[in-house]
Amino acid sequence: MKLSKKDILGIKELSQDEIHLILDTAESFLEVSTRKIKKVPTLRGKTVINFFVEASTRTRTSFEIAGKRLSADTVNISASTSSLVKGETLTDTAKTLEAMNPDIIVIRHSAAGAPHMLARLVRQSIINAGDGAHEHPTQALLDMMTIRMEKGTLRGLNVAIIGDIAHSRVARSNILGLTMMGANVTVCGPAMMIPRDVVKLSVRVSYHMEQAVKDADIIMMLRIQLERQNDNFFPSDREYARYYCLNSNNIRLAKPDVLVMHPGPINRGIEIAPDIADGAQSLILKQVTNGVAVRMALLYLLAGGEE
Amino acid sequence: MKLSKKDILGIKELSQDEIHLILDTAESFLEVSTRKIKKVPTLRGKTVINFFVEASTRTRTSFEIAGKRLSADTVNISASTSSLVKGETLTDTAKTLEAMNPDIIVIRHSAAGAPHMLARLVRQSIINAGDGAHEHPTQALLDMMTIRMEKGTLRGLNVAIIGDIAHSRVARSNILGLTMMGANVTVCGPAMMIPRDVVKLSVRVSYHMEQAVKDADIIMMLRIQLERQNDNFFPSDREYARYYCLNSNNIRLAKPDVLVMHPGPINRGIEIAPDIADGAQSLILKQVTNGVAVRMALLYLLAGGEE
Amino acid sequence: MKLSKKDILGIKELSQDEIHLILDTAESFLEVSTRKIKKVPTLRGKTVINFFVEASTRTRTSFEIAGKRLSADTVNISASTSSLVKGETLTDTAKTLEAMNPDIIVIRHSAAGAPHMLARLVRQSIINAGDGAHEHPTQALLDMMTIRMEKGTLRGLNVAIIGDIAHSRVARSNILGLTMMGANVTVCGPAMMIPRDVVKLSVRVSYHMEQAVKDADIIMMLRIQLERQNDNFFPSDREYARYYCLNSNNIRLAKPDVLVMHPGPINRGIEIAPDIADGAQSLILKQVTNGVAVRMALLYLLAGGEE
Repeated sequence: MKLSKKDILGIKELSQDEIHLILDTAESFLEVSTRKIKKVPTLRGKTVINFFVEASTRTRTSFEIAGKRLSADTVNISASTSSLVKGETLTDTAKTLEAMNPDIIVIRHSAAGAPHMLARLVRQSIINAGDGAHEHPTQALLDMMTIRMEKGTLRGLNVAIIGDIAHSRVARSNILGLTMMGANVTVCGPAMMIPRDVVKLSVRVSYHMEQAVKDADIIMMLRIQLERQNDNFFPSDREYARYYCLNSNNIRLAKPDVLVMHPGPINRGIEIAPDIADGAQSLILKQVTNGVAVRMALLYLLAGGEE
Repeated sequence: MKLSKKDILGIKELSQDEIHLILDTAESFLEVSTRKIKKVPTLRGKTVINFFVEASTRTRTSFEIAGKRLSADTVNISASTSSLVKGETLTDTAKTLEAMNPDIIVIRHSAAGAPHMLARLVRQSIINAGDGAHEHPTQALLDMMTIRMEKGTLRGLNVAIIGDIAHSRVARSNILGLTMMGANVTVCGPAMMIPRDVVKLSVRVSYHMEQAVKDADIIMMLRIQLERQNDNFFPSDREYARYYCLNSNNIRLAKPDVLVMHPGPINRGIEIAPDIADGAQSLILKQVTNGVAVRMALLYLLAGGEE
Repeated sequence: MKLSKKDILGIKELSQDEIHLILDTAESFLEVSTRKIKKVPTLRGKTVINFFVEASTRTRTSFEIAGKRLSADTVNISASTSSLVKGETLTDTAKTLEAMNPDIIVIRHSAAGAPHMLARLVRQSIINAGDGAHEHPTQALLDMMTIRMEKGTLRGLNVAIIGDIAHSRVARSNILGLTMMGANVTVCGPAMMIPRDVVKLSVRVSYHMEQAVKDADIIMMLRIQLERQNDNFFPSDREYARYYCLNSNNIRLAKPDVLVMHPGPINRGIEIAPDIADGAQSLILKQVTNGVAVRMALLYLLAGGEE
């Protein structure tokens, strides 16, 4: 089967079938990274540009490794070295990159919608690696892959997403994906971190950790952006941790076989207690491993799939 | 045919025949970047170091893609991470890079003559990717390639170069190349942006846009360095645009089939009106595409050519 | 023969036999970098992460070129773009990198012992590319390789190491290696730059340049960290040079066939006179060349050796 899409802009633009296709493909690529020779010639002669206008290590590294294991040529462009500092518009940068004939452009940008604009402007495939507080579809895909592999399905699972729902593209993409795939999603955090219209996304809202994690199959913790603490309405990290840190007490309210996720990098002792992050129920490192496989799958499917 | 040169330091050091050889080779490489598998094994096992002491995205990316499409190993060194910050002399850095046995060193440096010094010091091929206000030969080569492909020849064409002629290495390399190839070059800009001795380069000088673009076959706009506006003699960008912005009015004075060029990144509305930059007469994106092909040609010719 | 080690953390952890194996392997790789096609397929499909939390050009470039000449996929992560700036612990960064299934992680870190911590945490091979003032084993290995190639042996040679012994990881690794291999080591510098317990490392201590270089077969100069001059006890560079700069006068006290080394980047006229650095007795550039070979040898041996 083949993905009949030019771009991966958000979970919103994907169907259930497309998500299953991506996760199936990703699972089949998992094995490549465990071989002695971790490389397949699938994308030989293809050029993948990792265009990161917002800093990132793990996502950029994950895409770079994914590209290289498919034998693609990968080129990194980061904000600090980019023309953007010289005042070029994003449109002009995009057209310039297009003119160099890459096959796929992976973009991370602080402005919501930047990947969508690029996708309209250029003929190449665009992958959204995170745009502002909007979407982070590859993160949601790797999260769904991880859950599906552990639990066998997404349908009917109780998933609690805890943290700064309002400013998190990880939360947004996961809410869209998990509800589409039939999971029951509860979002939870301080009132000022819950967007008012989130109920339209068919999720349950809770302001109490204990209520949110009750009977959960999956608890997905979000990273608290400590750098935002200068904002007036942001609580201190100690205050936040008191009410919203996942620890060995409140996790007992979830199902006995509950599994814990976090997109990383984690703030130990703030949103997640160290023993939980490192415990047997934690999927955090499996998420990282699956991230490489999901990105391999997307690069592969966008570059032509079965050919 | 083979290029009997160790280095590409400037247009000044090239002959007409050599320029034609480079452009012919570049045209033959254009096709590689449009294949499904954009890669030839020509430079397998060769090491190309992109040594950029001055920041750049498009030129560095262009060289990196060019190297990878020829199967070379490319290594990027940028100023901020380089030993130079520890006070090492350029000579010592050059000798250190030489000792690692690369095949070609591409250098961009804020000091005019830096590539020439390297070329004398090290046995490897040096390509000047821009040295101060001196030369930017790969830009001029891609510009000449673009004109030759569009107009069939360079000989006899009227080319107007508009902007800060005095501080532009792009202008300097193009003046040298275009006059050598038989074009009639007019340079134009505010008086303080025209070097006094420019007439020695066999160009016509004008201080009036309308006069300069009259009957032009090619109008080449230069990027205005807005960051220089603190200099006393530099006009405000609004003042500059009033007199020297290429727009739908003054372009009418040129030949009906005039073509417009710009090395990028462009300042929309300052040196070039948006509708001109995006219009049918604009070659700006073809220049970018041809840039990859010219750099592939240079890497190929310096690394051994016909072998 | 095969190196039965997971990691290269320090010279301290190596035996004489292991050092000879590494140097023998490195010598055999020297030839690869002089071929027309400087590449062997040995590490095809292996992923090498260069994780440099402390800035470096020459060591990072040397490892990157070494990896590429062995056909490994190399991925660079530097401090400024790394998650570390977001407050992630080194442990969590390490576990994250591990989960992406690289084969070898090369780490430079300002904290002594960071590579050792990584080595305990992750299943991949770790190579220490310099940790604080602790060890820089690949530098000492390339230095020993260079001496062995020039002098035929390390045993019985008089080696003077001059400079800031107390803060130099290069000095520490070389002292450990050279004494193990049977050389007679003298360390020399201002009193505040000599660690009190250095005699335990079986070296002779001298505070006078003339005494230290007397009858030396090898003089190894260390780089003075000019950026440390704000420290109270650090002399001015002029004062330092007066007493501890290697020049054409004091070098005469050494053996007539003395050879001079420096890890670079050099401060000309401070720790070493220009005519000595560039003279026939200088091994400085051979050290750089051998550095690529030593790193190829280590990547090769850790990734499986004879297979």
